[in-house]
Amino acid sequence: MIQIVAVDLGGTNIRVAYFPTPEPPPTMHNKLLTHASEGPEAVIARIIEAIHAVLPTERDDLRIGVGSPGPIDPYRGVCLKAVNLPGWVNIPLQARLQEHFAYPVVVGNDANVAALGEWRFGAGKGISNLIYLTISTGIGGGIIVDGQLLLGAQGLGAELGHMTVEPGGPICSCGLLGHLEAVAAGPALARQATTLIEAGRPSILAQRLAVTDHLTGKDIGEAAQSGDALACEIIERAGEIIGRYLADLAHAFNPQAFVLGGGVSQLGPLLFEPIERSLHAHVMDPAYLKDLRVVPAALGDDAGLIGAMVLASQ
Amino acid sequence: MIQIVAVDLGGTNIRVAYFPTPEPPPTMHNKLLTHASEGPEAVIARIIEAIHAVLPTERDDLRIGVGSPGPIDPYRGVCLKAVNLPGWVNIPLQARLQEHFAYPVVVGNDANVAALGEWRFGAGKGISNLIYLTISTGIGGGIIVDGQLLLGAQGLGAELGHMTVEPGGPICSCGLLGHLEAVAAGPALARQATTLIEAGRPSILAQRLAVTDHLTGKDIGEAAQSGDALACEIIERAGEIIGRYLADLAHAFNPQAFVLGGGVSQLGPLLFEPIERSLHAHVMDPAYLKDLRVVPAALGDDAGLIGAMVLASQ
Repeated sequence: MIQIVAVDLGGTNIRVAYFPTPEPPPTMHNKLLTHASEGPEAVIARIIEAIHAVLPTERDDLRIGVGSPGPIDPYRGVCLKAVNLPGWVNIPLQARLQEHFAYPVVVGNDANVAALGEWRFGAGKGISNLIYLTISTGIGGGIIVDGQLLLGAQGLGAELGHMTVEPGGPICSCGLLGHLEAVAAGPALARQATTLIEAGRPSILAQRLAVTDHLTGKDIGEAAQSGDALACEIIERAGEIIGRYLADLAHAFNPQAFVLGGGVSQLGPLLFEPIERSLHAHVMDPAYLKDLRVVPAALGDDAGLIGAMVLASQ
Repeated sequence: MIQIVAVDLGGTNIRVAYFPTPEPPPTMHNKLLTHASEGPEAVIARIIEAIHAVLPTERDDLRIGVGSPGPIDPYRGVCLKAVNLPGWVNIPLQARLQEHFAYPVVVGNDANVAALGEWRFGAGKGISNLIYLTISTGIGGGIIVDGQLLLGAQGLGAELGHMTVEPGGPICSCGLLGHLEAVAAGPALARQATTLIEAGRPSILAQRLAVTDHLTGKDIGEAAQSGDALACEIIERAGEIIGRYLADLAHAFNPQAFVLGGGVSQLGPLLFEPIERSLHAHVMDPAYLKDLRVVPAALGDDAGLIGAMVLASQ
């Protein structure tokens, strides 16, 4: 019988859970602070300790699955780099954990792993071709093709936040211009609002900007939900761009579902309506829309943990 | 022993070949005019006749593979529509051929099938993740992920000519704006040259335009190869856009090769150099370039026929 310890490594928290069978819910669940500033060695020691704390006494076919931020070499289980984890460059996480545990360890990119979770137990259940996007501070992706995670030659695929949607547009976290992340992630929305307010457009956000000198994606979302015209306009425009982008992806992948997770995707109809409208306007043939759903992610913060379990169960 | 009859259905020619084993070269090979204007029934009758002409007398595990233009439902073998074949709307080609032959018939989209050919026996041999683009009058694609053709839920995937590279840009054959096909296929290059010449830019193409009132992609290619500055500039710009687009695809698919076929791709370094330069400039991490090759297709006009053979052999 397969038993799984799943680990969700994040910039703020490490979450660990024990699944006595390869399905949710877990019977044990720990959450501890990552203390990322202490560096990779301290974080790895903390992960090992947290795994020990949930290990069952009776062990049959026990496996350990880990979702980790940033580009990963999933074939060797190496974290190539992680923006939110200082010092994480070429860290052989799988090998380091394997030194401590006699059970198979597998490591995947956190967005890829979340896609696996949503595919098997969340909003994409029962679907064999889906695309998962997580839209928050950055934009990550996961692609399921015929029931398999698309990894690519070196496991670097599905970086769906880094495709050009506005050539020559705003600079992206990766240094290139006009990527989806640079136009539609939380910080991009905040930047757009700041620019417009500084140009004199009225908004309830103006006061907040004057006080804090800084807006967040969350601020824009809250302002839009309370009816602020400027915030609504920014979110509608982001939805239009995301929708056109999903149409492009539909032409390439012809999926049955787009599953949208992350903070920005919690905006509900404010975001999903312009996305749907723009997707419909930008597919080259209505056949692409047949049985195609655009749905919010269903697993919330648990997608990574459940996905790490799915990864290890495969 | 698998024996295969392969059919490459085009707007101008039907090509049929017999492969006594699932590898090139074929031992028999027929080419006849499609006479597409006579409509689907006449064309199907012609295909059936051409298949009969190459059928071997000794038949073991005989199969028939067909590559057909336009969007296909490869799961049911239905040609949904084909721009170059008048009247081809929802034609159940597989079923129609199956009525006449007791051997398994399989039908695939021509660009997908050409990708299979290049992957197994052409420029992508030995590679498990590749993207094939055919750039001529239109732009078609084929995607191999982990040694499998990516078809998508309804088999409509890999329409790589129809992803947005210039939002709000020129109108595409599909009616949408700014798709790769509308910017970098042959007719797009001809249109760009015409506009610039009409605006007074000098070019050896000006005389040709004055005489024929019409330029083709081939004209631009020939002018560029003879050193015409305007034609070179147009091809360089197309290469830059294609290169950036390939970088976007690298982020999504992380392939080991981009195989470029079709007329435009025969321009050699004139096109491939700006593509390589732009690809290098637009990947978010050099890791994507590791072992990544951009290569011209190797099978030429035979890609479709060999690919249809590969399709049937699977």
